[in-house]
Amino acid sequence: MANIAKKVSWSGKNDETRGERTPLLNGSEEVRYNRQLSGGPIFHIGRLSTVDLEEDIATEEDPVRSRPKEIPHNEKLLSLKYESLDYDNSENQLFLEEERRMSHMGFRCLEISRWVICGLIGVFTGLIACFIDIVVEKLAGVKYSVVKKNIEMFTEVGGLSISLLLWVVLNSAFVMVGAIIVTCFEPIAAGSGIPQIKCYLNGVKVPRVVRLKTLVVKVCGVICSVAGGLAVGKEGPMIHSGAVVAAGVSQGRSTSLKKDFKIFEYFRRDTEKRDFVSAGAAAGVSAAFGAPVGGVLFSLEEGASFWNQMLTWRIFFASMISTFTLNLVLSVYHNKTTELSSPGLINFGTFDLECVQYSLYEIPLFICMGAIGGLLGALFNLLNYWLTIFRIRYVHRPCLQVMEAMMVAAVTASVSFAMIYLSNDCKPLKMDNSEEYPLQLFCADGEYNAMATTFFNTPERSVRSLFHNPRGTYNLLTLGFFTLTYFFLACWTYGLMVSAGVFIPSLLIGAAWGRLFGVLLPNKTFIKPIWADPGKYALMGAAAQLGGIVRMTLSLTVILVEATGNVTYGFPIMLVLMTAKIVGDYFIEGLYDIHIKLQSVPFLHWEAPATSHWLTAREVMSSPVTCFNQLEKVGTIMDFLSNTATNHNGFPVIVQASGEQSGKLCGLILRSQLIVLLKHKVFVERAHSRLHQRKLQLKDFRDAYPRFPPIQSIHVSQDERECMMDLSEFMNPTPYTVPQETSLPRVFKLFRALGLRHLVVVDDVNKVVGLVTRKDLARYHMGKHGLEELHLAQM
Amino acid sequence: MANIAKKVSWSGKNDETRGERTPLLNGSEEVRYNRQLSGGPIFHIGRLSTVDLEEDIATEEDPVRSRPKEIPHNEKLLSLKYESLDYDNSENQLFLEEERRMSHMGFRCLEISRWVICGLIGVFTGLIACFIDIVVEKLAGVKYSVVKKNIEMFTEVGGLSISLLLWVVLNSAFVMVGAIIVTCFEPIAAGSGIPQIKCYLNGVKVPRVVRLKTLVVKVCGVICSVAGGLAVGKEGPMIHSGAVVAAGVSQGRSTSLKKDFKIFEYFRRDTEKRDFVSAGAAAGVSAAFGAPVGGVLFSLEEGASFWNQMLTWRIFFASMISTFTLNLVLSVYHNKTTELSSPGLINFGTFDLECVQYSLYEIPLFICMGAIGGLLGALFNLLNYWLTIFRIRYVHRPCLQVMEAMMVAAVTASVSFAMIYLSNDCKPLKMDNSEEYPLQLFCADGEYNAMATTFFNTPERSVRSLFHNPRGTYNLLTLGFFTLTYFFLACWTYGLMVSAGVFIPSLLIGAAWGRLFGVLLPNKTFIKPIWADPGKYALMGAAAQLGGIVRMTLSLTVILVEATGNVTYGFPIMLVLMTAKIVGDYFIEGLYDIHIKLQSVPFLHWEAPATSHWLTAREVMSSPVTCFNQLEKVGTIMDFLSNTATNHNGFPVIVQASGEQSGKLCGLILRSQLIVLLKHKVFVERAHSRLHQRKLQLKDFRDAYPRFPPIQSIHVSQDERECMMDLSEFMNPTPYTVPQETSLPRVFKLFRALGLRHLVVVDDVNKVVGLVTRKDLARYHMGKHGLEELHLAQM
Repeated sequence: MANIAKKVSWSGKNDETRGERTPLLNGSEEVRYNRQLSGGPIFHIGRLSTVDLEEDIATEEDPVRSRPKEIPHNEKLLSLKYESLDYDNSENQLFLEEERRMSHMGFRCLEISRWVICGLIGVFTGLIACFIDIVVEKLAGVKYSVVKKNIEMFTEVGGLSISLLLWVVLNSAFVMVGAIIVTCFEPIAAGSGIPQIKCYLNGVKVPRVVRLKTLVVKVCGVICSVAGGLAVGKEGPMIHSGAVVAAGVSQGRSTSLKKDFKIFEYFRRDTEKRDFVSAGAAAGVSAAFGAPVGGVLFSLEEGASFWNQMLTWRIFFASMISTFTLNLVLSVYHNKTTELSSPGLINFGTFDLECVQYSLYEIPLFICMGAIGGLLGALFNLLNYWLTIFRIRYVHRPCLQVMEAMMVAAVTASVSFAMIYLSNDCKPLKMDNSEEYPLQLFCADGEYNAMATTFFNTPERSVRSLFHNPRGTYNLLTLGFFTLTYFFLACWTYGLMVSAGVFIPSLLIGAAWGRLFGVLLPNKTFIKPIWADPGKYALMGAAAQLGGIVRMTLSLTVILVEATGNVTYGFPIMLVLMTAKIVGDYFIEGLYDIHIKLQSVPFLHWEAPATSHWLTAREVMSSPVTCFNQLEKVGTIMDFLSNTATNHNGFPVIVQASGEQSGKLCGLILRSQLIVLLKHKVFVERAHSRLHQRKLQLKDFRDAYPRFPPIQSIHVSQDERECMMDLSEFMNPTPYTVPQETSLPRVFKLFRALGLRHLVVVDDVNKVVGLVTRKDLARYHMGKHGLEELHLAQM
Repeated sequence: MANIAKKVSWSGKNDETRGERTPLLNGSEEVRYNRQLSGGPIFHIGRLSTVDLEEDIATEEDPVRSRPKEIPHNEKLLSLKYESLDYDNSENQLFLEEERRMSHMGFRCLEISRWVICGLIGVFTGLIACFIDIVVEKLAGVKYSVVKKNIEMFTEVGGLSISLLLWVVLNSAFVMVGAIIVTCFEPIAAGSGIPQIKCYLNGVKVPRVVRLKTLVVKVCGVICSVAGGLAVGKEGPMIHSGAVVAAGVSQGRSTSLKKDFKIFEYFRRDTEKRDFVSAGAAAGVSAAFGAPVGGVLFSLEEGASFWNQMLTWRIFFASMISTFTLNLVLSVYHNKTTELSSPGLINFGTFDLECVQYSLYEIPLFICMGAIGGLLGALFNLLNYWLTIFRIRYVHRPCLQVMEAMMVAAVTASVSFAMIYLSNDCKPLKMDNSEEYPLQLFCADGEYNAMATTFFNTPERSVRSLFHNPRGTYNLLTLGFFTLTYFFLACWTYGLMVSAGVFIPSLLIGAAWGRLFGVLLPNKTFIKPIWADPGKYALMGAAAQLGGIVRMTLSLTVILVEATGNVTYGFPIMLVLMTAKIVGDYFIEGLYDIHIKLQSVPFLHWEAPATSHWLTAREVMSSPVTCFNQLEKVGTIMDFLSNTATNHNGFPVIVQASGEQSGKLCGLILRSQLIVLLKHKVFVERAHSRLHQRKLQLKDFRDAYPRFPPIQSIHVSQDERECMMDLSEFMNPTPYTVPQETSLPRVFKLFRALGLRHLVVVDDVNKVVGLVTRKDLARYHMGKHGLEELHLAQM
C-alpha cells in the first residue's frame, strides 16, 4: 500500500478543495484493505513514474519559469486550476422573494427573451461565419493571383526556386501574424476550441474561454491560418465563436468593452449562461456545416446531461437562424438571392440522384473502410499525442511557438511545391470551370496540374472536388501521395498555437484515400453502375477518417448527412462511423479527449467507472470542511477567504446552537456570495443604521457576475472585523446532501444529472462530514488494470 | 378556503400513497394562508364542478359497472391507478456483492449484450413493419379489385346503390374485426399508442402496455383498420409495437408464453427495461418514417430526462437497424435488392432537385401556413376533446364501441362514395401509371376519377400524390371538399377503439389544403419558376397540420426531413412547425397531451410550474409515512402489505434503537422486495436452519420481475408471523432525501433528473417526516389563473 500514501502535495491556490486533504482517512484505508481481502477488485493507484514526478516538482519550484502554463502536463494528473460551473440555483431568500414578486406574465416575458437571445445568437454567429468565409475567399484569391503570376513568370525563365520562396514567405507571413496574435493576446484561442467548449459544457470553468477578446483573436487567427495555406479548416473555430457570441449576447453586456446594456440581467448566472452557450455552440456547428440538427445533437452529445425539451427547441432555433443568416448573407453576397444555396461554410455539393444509392454488396466494403479510418485515426491521434507531449515539454515559449507555426507553414508550402513539381498529373482544362484555381504549371497548354489544384484550392473546395469529380480526374499516385503528405502535415499542424480546426483536414485525408479505395475497386463487375462513382467512396472515407480521429457518432452522422444534403447515405455513414469508433477506441482515445486529458481538466464522463460501486462518499469526499455559522464574525470570514492555502469556493453553513442542534447543516454559501456581502458590508450591526433603506438584492450579485472581485480588493476595517454577518438570508437553505455510505456511482449520477458544484456529505444526524466536488469525482477513471486514481496537482 | 378541504376521498387500492392522506396538514394550511397575506401568488385550487364530482362518486358506487375503465374521467383529476417506474437502482448489499464479483470483462460483456439487444429490437421492429406493410398492401389490392369489378359491373347496369352497399359492408366488416379484437382482448391497444408510450417513457407504469398480447392485437388491429378504409395511418402504432418488442427482447423471456430463454437476466429491472423501451420506440419511428435520427429525437423528446451518450448511440443503432431491415426486406420482396429504396413505411417520394428550393419571399407564406395549421390543429383537438369526453361518458361498453367503429367505417365509405359521385374531376389516364388504383367510374374512357383515386388509395399513396403530382392534377373543388370531409372523418376516427395512428390523416389533410394554398397562389409573378410547384406547399401544409395537432417540433422536423429525403426544406419546415405550435398552444394542448390528461395520468412535465417556488416539500409530501424497522416482525409486514386501504409501494426503513438514534432513516425498501422476501421466507430465525446454504440472490428478485405476486398469494403461518425479518441487507441503504424546506422546483428537478419513484423527506435530525411520489408532484400545474392543484381520485 506504499503508493497510496505517496501523493503529490501542493501549496498555493487550489480551488474548491477545503482544508488540507488528508491523503487517506485511516478508516477508509482499512475498509479498502478489508475489501481486498474479501475478494473485491484490487485498488490500483495510477503510479507516477518517479521521473515525471520529480520533473513536475522541479518545474514548480523553478523560479525562472513563472508562467503556469509552462509547467509540464501529464495525463495522470488532475489540475486544480479549473473551477466548476454551478448549474444548481442557489434558492436563497432573495431568489424566492424575486420569484414571488414575479407575475405569470413576468415568467412569460423571460421565456420570450430567451427566444430572442437565441435568435440573436444565431444571427451573430451566422454573420461571423460569413465574415470569415468572405475574407478567406478574398485573401485566397489575392494570394492565388500573386503566386500564379509569379510562377508563370518564373517558370518561363526557369527560376523555380524564386517562386517557391515567394510562396513560402507569403504563407509563413500569414501564419506568423496568426500565431503572434494567438500567443501574445489570447493563448486559449489556439486550436479548434472544441475541447475547451466540451469542457465548458461539461461544467468546467475554463478561464477566459468565452471572452470577447478570445473571439476577436480566434476569428483573425483562423483567417490567417487558412490564408497561410496550413492544413486546417475554418469550421472547428466556428463552434468556439458561437459559444463566445452566446455568452456575450445572453449577458447583455461586455466586461471587456465595459459596456452594460442593462438587458437580460436575469440571465447573469451560470445556469442560464451555460444553456445559452450550448445554443451558441450548436449555432456554430450549424453555420459551419449547414447542419442545424447536427448542431443540436453536438451540443447535447457533448454537454447537456439534463435534457430539457424547451431548451432543446431554443437551441434548435438558434441553429436554424444561424444557418439561415449565413445562407441569406452569402446568397446576397454572391447575387443569388432566390436560391439560398449556401447553408454552411462547407458545402459538400449535391450528389447525383442516380448515384445516391448503395447496394447490399457494398456494406462490407463500407465497414472495411470504417476499420481503415479507425486505424488511421488512431495513428493520427497517437502521433499527435506524442507531438503534444513534446510541445508541452519543449515548445512553451511564445517565440518558439510562433517559430514552429511558421516552420510548419514553410514546410507545408515546400512539400506542396515539391509534390506539384514531381507529379505530372495533367488534366485537360474543362470549360465549365469547376476548378476555380487551375494552374498550368508544367503542363501543356489547355491542361492544368491536378496536384497543384488540390494543394492550391481551399481545403473545402478540394473535398468537394474529391466527392464529385468524375472517375479519372485524379490518378492513383496523386491521391496516394496527397493522402500521405497531408496526413502528416495535418497531424503536425493540429496543436500549433494558431486558430484552426481539424475537421476539414480529416475530411480531406479521408476523401483522398476513400477515392483511392473507390478507384482501386474492380470496376468491371455485374454491379458496375453503382460502383462506378468513386465520389461515394470518397465520402465514406472522409467519414471514416473524421470518425477515427474525433470519435463522435450520432452528431457526426447527422452533420455529414446534412452537409451532403441527402439522407440516403445515413445508414452507411453510421456504419462507417461506428466501425471507426470501435476500431479506434481499441488503440487510443479521440483527439479531443486526448487534449482534454493532457490539460488535466477535471472532466466528468457520462457515468462513473463501472467497477466503482464499492467506493463510497466517505472515501471520495474531501474533509475536514471549513464551515461557517449562520451568524459569523466578519473577521473569521475574511481570514478564511484570504487564506491562499485553502482557496475554497463553497462553505456549508451550520446551525449555531448549544447541545444537540449544534453543527447541523443548514445551508451552503459560495465564496462569490460572501465577497458581494463583504463588499456591500451587509453586517448585522449596520442593519439598523444608514444602510437600512437599501436592502441587498439579487441584482447586486448579478452585477458582480461573473468576475467577482478577489478578496484582496475588499477592505474591512478593524472595527468591522468585529461585526457579525447573518448568512441565513443569502445561503442556499436546501443544498443537496448524501449520507457517507452513498456509493460513488450514486454520487456521480446526482452530481452529473443536476450539474452540481458542491455536494455536502452528512452523517446520520445531519452534521457535515465532507464535501464532494468535481475533482473528487473526476479523479477516478478506468485504466488498463481496473480503477485508477489521478493525482491532484497545482498547475 | 372551503374548497381546499373538499377533497375526493377514496377507498380501495391506491398505489404509492402511504396511510390516510390528510387532506391538508394544519401547518401547511397556515403557511399557505400566511403567504397569501404577505403578497405571494394566490393559491388557486382547481375546483370540481359539483355535478362532475357527484357523477364520479355515483359511478364508483354503481355496482353494475364493474370495469374500472368505464368510470368517467376528468382532466381535473389525477388517477391513483398508475404506478411509477423506478429509474433509480436499489443499491443494496446483494447488488454491491454482485457488482464486486463482476470483473471488468463482465461489464464489457454486459455492454455488448446491450448492443446485441438493440440490434435485435431493430430487426424485429423492422420485420413487424414489413409484415404490416405487406399485409395491408395485399388486402388493399384485394379490396380494390373486388370493389372495382363490382362498381364497373353495376355502373353499367345503373345499380350504384348495390356497389355502395358492398363497399360499406366490406369496410365495416374489416373494422368490426379490428374493433372486436381490440375491445375484447386488449383495450390498451386502441389508438396510436403514442400517448401510452409517452407515459411509459415519462416513468408511468401503464398497465399491460408492453405485453406480447398487446403487440399481437395492435398489429392485427391496425391491419384491419387500414384495410377497412378508415381515415387512419399504420405509422403511429409502429412506435407502440417497437416498444413492446423492446420490452420483450430485452427481458429474454415472455411471461405470456411462459417461455424463459434464461438470457439477459441482468436487464430485468425498470432502469434497464426503460432504456430498451426508448430504443424500441425510436426503432418504431424509424421503421414507420424511415427516420432513424427522428426516432432518436422522438425518444429523447418524449422520454429521456437524463441524456446518456452511450444510451443514445444504442438507441440510434436500433433505429438504424430497424429502418435497414425494413428497407432490405421490402426491397427483396419487391425484387429491387440493389436499390434499397424503402427506408420507411411511408415514403414521401423524391422531390425534383430543381424544385427543392425556396426563396426568401416564400418565408412569410410558410409562416402563414404554419398559423393556419395551428388553427386547424387546435380545432381538430378541440373537437376530438369534446368527442372523447362524450365517449368516456356514454360509449364505454364494448358493444357500443364496436358499433361506433363500424358506424364510422360505414360513414367514411358512404361519404367517400358520395363525394366521388358528386365530383366529376376526370383526368386523363397517364401511361406511367403513377396512380396504382385508377378508377374510371363516371369518367370518359381513358380518364380516371381523381377524387375516387384519392379516397381509394392508401392514405400514404395519396400523400405522395399530393406532394408530387404536377400542377393541375387535382381541381380546386376536389381539394377543398376532400380537406373538409377528411378533417371531420379523421377527427371522429381518432379515439375509436381501433388501433390506428393520426400521423397520416393529419399529413393528408394538411397536404390537401396546402396544395390548395399552393394552387391558389398567383402563379404569374416574376418568381414563377419557384412557385410553380404546388407540391412544396402540400408538404408545408402537411407539416403545419401535423404540427398543429401533435405539437412536436424538433423530432417532427427531423422526421419530415428524413421522410422527404432532403435537408433543404429543413428551415421552412421548422418555421412552419414552430408557428403551428405557438398558434395552437394558444388555444388548446396537443392531441396526445389531451388524451394523457383525460386519462388522469400522473405525467411529469419538464419543469415544475414556474410560480411554484414558494411551495415546499413539507406541503407537497404525503404524510404520515408507514415505516419499518430494520428488524421487523413478519406479522407487521404482512398486515401492512395486506391492508388494501393503503396499498403502499415504498417504505422507509428506520433505525431501531433507544434514545436519540431511534427513528432515523437508514434505508428504503420496496413492496416488491418485501414480497420476494416473504415468499422465500427469509426470516432471521430460519437463517441458521436448513435454508442456510441457499442465500437469497438478486436473481430471485429478477425472476419475479416485473409481475410480482400479490400479497394475498403468499401464505404465512401463525408461527412464522412471530418471526423477524432483517431488512438491512435488502433495502436501499442510501435513498435520496431532501429536507422539508426544499422548494417544489428543486424536488421536481431531483425527481425528474434521476427518475425517482420515492423521495424521502427528512427533518433536520434525519427522521422521516414524509414521502414524495410522482403523484404529489404531478398534482400541481399551471392553469389559467395560476397554480392549480389536481384532485387525486381512485379510478
